[in-house]
Amino acid sequence: MIRIIMHGCNGKMGQVITNLLKDDENARIVAGIDPYDDGRNSYPVFSSLDSCVVKADVIIDFASPKAMDSLLEYSVKEGVPAVLCTTGLSDEQIKNIEEASKKVAILKSANMSLGINIMFKLLQAVAKILVPAGFDVELVEKHHNQKVDAPSGTALALADAIKEVLPDDYFYKYDRTQENAKRDPKEIGISVIRGGTIVGEHEVIFAGEDEVLEFKHTAYSKSIFAKGAIEAAKFLAGKPAGFYDMKDVIG
Amino acid sequence: MIRIIMHGCNGKMGQVITNLLKDDENARIVAGIDPYDDGRNSYPVFSSLDSCVVKADVIIDFASPKAMDSLLEYSVKEGVPAVLCTTGLSDEQIKNIEEASKKVAILKSANMSLGINIMFKLLQAVAKILVPAGFDVELVEKHHNQKVDAPSGTALALADAIKEVLPDDYFYKYDRTQENAKRDPKEIGISVIRGGTIVGEHEVIFAGEDEVLEFKHTAYSKSIFAKGAIEAAKFLAGKPAGFYDMKDVIG
Amino acid sequence: MIRIIMHGCNGKMGQVITNLLKDDENARIVAGIDPYDDGRNSYPVFSSLDSCVVKADVIIDFASPKAMDSLLEYSVKEGVPAVLCTTGLSDEQIKNIEEASKKVAILKSANMSLGINIMFKLLQAVAKILVPAGFDVELVEKHHNQKVDAPSGTALALADAIKEVLPDDYFYKYDRTQENAKRDPKEIGISVIRGGTIVGEHEVIFAGEDEVLEFKHTAYSKSIFAKGAIEAAKFLAGKPAGFYDMKDVIG
Amino acid sequence: MIRIIMHGCNGKMGQVITNLLKDDENARIVAGIDPYDDGRNSYPVFSSLDSCVVKADVIIDFASPKAMDSLLEYSVKEGVPAVLCTTGLSDEQIKNIEEASKKVAILKSANMSLGINIMFKLLQAVAKILVPAGFDVELVEKHHNQKVDAPSGTALALADAIKEVLPDDYFYKYDRTQENAKRDPKEIGISVIRGGTIVGEHEVIFAGEDEVLEFKHTAYSKSIFAKGAIEAAKFLAGKPAGFYDMKDVIG
Repeated sequence: MIRIIMHGCNGKMGQVITNLLKDDENARIVAGIDPYDDGRNSYPVFSSLDSCVVKADVIIDFASPKAMDSLLEYSVKEGVPAVLCTTGLSDEQIKNIEEASKKVAILKSANMSLGINIMFKLLQAVAKILVPAGFDVELVEKHHNQKVDAPSGTALALADAIKEVLPDDYFYKYDRTQENAKRDPKEIGISVIRGGTIVGEHEVIFAGEDEVLEFKHTAYSKSIFAKGAIEAAKFLAGKPAGFYDMKDVIG
Repeated sequence: MIRIIMHGCNGKMGQVITNLLKDDENARIVAGIDPYDDGRNSYPVFSSLDSCVVKADVIIDFASPKAMDSLLEYSVKEGVPAVLCTTGLSDEQIKNIEEASKKVAILKSANMSLGINIMFKLLQAVAKILVPAGFDVELVEKHHNQKVDAPSGTALALADAIKEVLPDDYFYKYDRTQENAKRDPKEIGISVIRGGTIVGEHEVIFAGEDEVLEFKHTAYSKSIFAKGAIEAAKFLAGKPAGFYDMKDVIG
Repeated sequence: MIRIIMHGCNGKMGQVITNLLKDDENARIVAGIDPYDDGRNSYPVFSSLDSCVVKADVIIDFASPKAMDSLLEYSVKEGVPAVLCTTGLSDEQIKNIEEASKKVAILKSANMSLGINIMFKLLQAVAKILVPAGFDVELVEKHHNQKVDAPSGTALALADAIKEVLPDDYFYKYDRTQENAKRDPKEIGISVIRGGTIVGEHEVIFAGEDEVLEFKHTAYSKSIFAKGAIEAAKFLAGKPAGFYDMKDVIG
Repeated sequence: MIRIIMHGCNGKMGQVITNLLKDDENARIVAGIDPYDDGRNSYPVFSSLDSCVVKADVIIDFASPKAMDSLLEYSVKEGVPAVLCTTGLSDEQIKNIEEASKKVAILKSANMSLGINIMFKLLQAVAKILVPAGFDVELVEKHHNQKVDAPSGTALALADAIKEVLPDDYFYKYDRTQENAKRDPKEIGISVIRGGTIVGEHEVIFAGEDEVLEFKHTAYSKSIFAKGAIEAAKFLAGKPAGFYDMKDVIG
């Protein structure tokens, strides 16, 4: 039975994970960390990692960026691997995470869902075959109308993964309406749709001569990130120091 | 039997129409107009309308913009209605067309296909109900990688049709990646995909709270514009002076 | 302020409606009916309509079929219109509903969502134009893997709406794999996809010569039925006796 | 420069290949085989392989099943590899092909397009990860209304490829409308859409808890099979005896 510390246990995702783990036979939450607590959880809750007296095998983090520094410190000092799902980190924090990963196992991913990470794996293989055969690459992502960043972090990560296996002169194209010109074959088009409460769709299109191949991932709720985090935690417990990724989890 | 003059008979679309009309029981081409001719057609071909000595009930035009002026002149003088499918006209030519339509029946449309024109009809009705109910409007169009204009004329015409029934402060949004901000409810998003040999796709998305309604038209070949032009010609023969549209044809 | 009796207030949909109405300025729940109650609601809850002493303008019903008879009796006797959202009714109950609607306003729909009901309206108009023009009609619906009925009631209602405007010899085709034959133009194909937790997708395809027109509705949660029921209740309060439908609500 | 014999050179696909090879720098047709000839080709045409006196490195076959036996005989006797694209072969002919492949290089595939064969490669890898993780598999194919076989050979081949990596008790489900029952997790759903002139679409859906992954291939013309056949011919020339597949071509 893997023992988990849920960092940010009373946030939305912390509670989704709490619920998902209620009937899990292989992992359970032994402590939660959250500055606010109303006693709703069946496990003990501490206001910070400093005050946590419970031993665990792995930490799942869905807290806020400002709690990242103390989390890394604890993780290194106690030798407890950490699955980091907090977004909006500063460049310095990213560097601190890399430093920490030299001493303890750290897992961080642009997107925690199983489906998206399978797309990452596939797209590189596909791009390597289809782009030299003359196929154009286009990426479309859709999210709800309250999202402020565009394109989404996941869309950029997918585009980066594709760009990585292509020649250096490929580039992202966000807007074609300001000029009258044929498509440059080196473009990777990225289109951003926003509307309603759409949870998240990512589609990659390979368009060739008289045939098109499309890969599409649709998320219906954020619980898929919670499930991915749990899978990651089970994977990471007991692993040696290093920087890990969801791609390692799906093998 | 409706008698048609095919203006631009030896161009790509002129030949598609020639083929489609071979077995038509209600209409036939009685003369073609084209500066170039190799005798391949079963009807007489004249180098210009001026030299055409055959009487007809309607003209279908798929020639070039520079032949537009003589076409309008002929159409008005002889009282022969004209279906105009040539694109890339100047503002002055558009004005000349409007003038001509006061004296003879003229039909011109952003897109000649039956399916797209049904979308035009529907979208206004749908937008009037869904936008006040809080749905966001997004438009996506896909075309081949040789197309120079973006967005397509049809996409703009669809967007214009929707905008027409909404309050004045709605506006088109072509690129969301240059700022970090929530979607303005007044945005009509327009995304442009280019790739391979895609003939033409137009999709309008109404995204609301927990539900999405999508309308999508896919063209598989340009013959749909030829068929629309033939339907339009049958409709226009015998009609009084005026400016007509494919929406009139589908009734 | 419209006063609502929530029939089946402690069921899943009853609670969704309770939450949606908390901040509504035009309607509120004045009483709930449910055999089980734990005091969680801010309005009084009665075990049956018989014992309900609160006056209301309209009833929303998301209870079980076995409570339908007493609901109709109360509705007729007290002259309170009712929005009926319970599914799985017997033929006799359907007949009783029709009888009751001669004396009080009753609203019942195959699907309570705004988007689906707009599709109903559109599809008849579209089918009347496209089918005579040679387009084939195909319907695809997707739902989660726990759904037992196939096709969905909504899919059948959409197909029925289309069939209604076509000649009598059109028929539904559920399986094409048991014979080797070309498609009969009179077929209306109905395909059923089941998988995962898909809430509900309904797509109608009109496929013609070189062009395809698609209409697709995607539901992301069942709250869209709750919202539709509230809109229906606001519409129905004060209406004369008669059988109403969501199509009347969207006007 | 690879020398090709085009078997069935005056059929539709034979002519598409003839056109595609006109400007090819690495391969050219040195002879055509067809019982009918009107002298339209720039290469010599023989009425049968028996009478062909031109040496070649590889044969591309898009003829009819009844010419298969003489093709295999010639291929074995002369040691010329053959790319077989003819469909509708009898079981005996399939067996003859296997026999011939012991003596000469033979390539045969359910579908000759690059895109579809990439799907074959991916789907097995994806199914191995997602099905054990609880995802349901559904397959949808769309073709024109003149197609007689259902499901398409390509759809069946895709389904077979997936089934191959799953436990033995998985089975195909063609129709869900004749019973009222939840989806059996062992089902692989196969849905068949027929309409208009749709050239060919194949979509595989992996539907899990709150996320869906879709892979879709769209063919816009049959020229993609011609291009695949040319790629296959270039690959096969000079290869040792054996049974090859498009998957070998894309590597």
